[in-house]
Amino acid sequence: MAHYGYSETKPQVLKRLSRVEGQVRGISRMVAEDKYCIDVLTQISAAQAALDKVALELVREHSKHCMAHSENVEEKADELVDALGRLLSR
Amino acid sequence: MAHYGYSETKPQVLKRLSRVEGQVRGISRMVAEDKYCIDVLTQISAAQAALDKVALELVREHSKHCMAHSENVEEKADELVDALGRLLSR
Amino acid sequence: MAHYGYSETKPQVLKRLSRVEGQVRGISRMVAEDKYCIDVLTQISAAQAALDKVALELVREHSKHCMAHSENVEEKADELVDALGRLLSR
Amino acid sequence: MAHYGYSETKPQVLKRLSRVEGQVRGISRMVAEDKYCIDVLTQISAAQAALDKVALELVREHSKHCMAHSENVEEKADELVDALGRLLSR
Repeated sequence: MAHYGYSETKPQVLKRLSRVEGQVRGISRMVAEDKYCIDVLTQISAAQAALDKVALELVREHSKHCMAHSENVEEKADELVDALGRLLSR
Repeated sequence: MAHYGYSETKPQVLKRLSRVEGQVRGISRMVAEDKYCIDVLTQISAAQAALDKVALELVREHSKHCMAHSENVEEKADELVDALGRLLSR
Repeated sequence: MAHYGYSETKPQVLKRLSRVEGQVRGISRMVAEDKYCIDVLTQISAAQAALDKVALELVREHSKHCMAHSENVEEKADELVDALGRLLSR
Repeated sequence: MAHYGYSETKPQVLKRLSRVEGQVRGISRMVAEDKYCIDVLTQISAAQAALDKVALELVREHSKHCMAHSENVEEKADELVDALGRLLSR
């Protein structure tokens, strides 16, 4: 059972993640085949942008569901900010 | 034959990338199992940090090899800056 | 009158921002005096980290106050995610 | 005398930095006047993007001048990568 409410966007998030997995596999292949490093960097940026999108989707779900229905909004907000802090200064 | 000189760190970069692939697969599993979204966010930050490390390793190789041995340092520097721009503002 | 509830942390946020202003002025001085560019980059990272902290403080306030007391949590959450998207992929 | 070669783009970098200083001052004013926090976040993103551009300009100069004319390219490349690491994971 879905407790945390991201079941709605779950299929979309899972599809995105499986695409990221493919992107990372593609990056490995590029490195293995000695592709030009600038081109590899470009692909890394694309994979990170895709992960950013997944992260934002989770923040959206957290805000709409976990926070909105929480009895302790303060705590949920602090949790979110900590997670964003890790995302920004990873 | 490796033209671009990151053959030296290649095994290490490939190992890192295969770990990132595993991380992304783990994130998919967490989403599929409705794990708490804050914990998923934390794992996304970890995967992003690992990709950052790979990117920096490639920049290092590019700087040491491609740029140092290039006849056109200006062009190589511009290429690098463009790639970093995509990385920063993906 | 403070409508948006960040009056609580306002003095702290304003102090941080005035420190960032000083940091940026310091960076200008370093450039004007031809300081070593790596040292300038380090100072830029510091100023950006400080701005990240201010941003996170605002997200915290937004989450605790604007969202918690809003009649339209969905809309507030979307606004927040859009703002975070701009922050991540600026 | 400019030792580090960014004298060429110096006026442009200084102009950008003085604009960032103005942006940060504007953000302080917005906070002081209790402007809507999402709008403040947008302005913070703009200031960060402007600082990113300055950072990339310095990387370009470092790559074209410091690294190209250095007797120790390895060391310069490592310095650069360390600085970029701080920028990415500030």
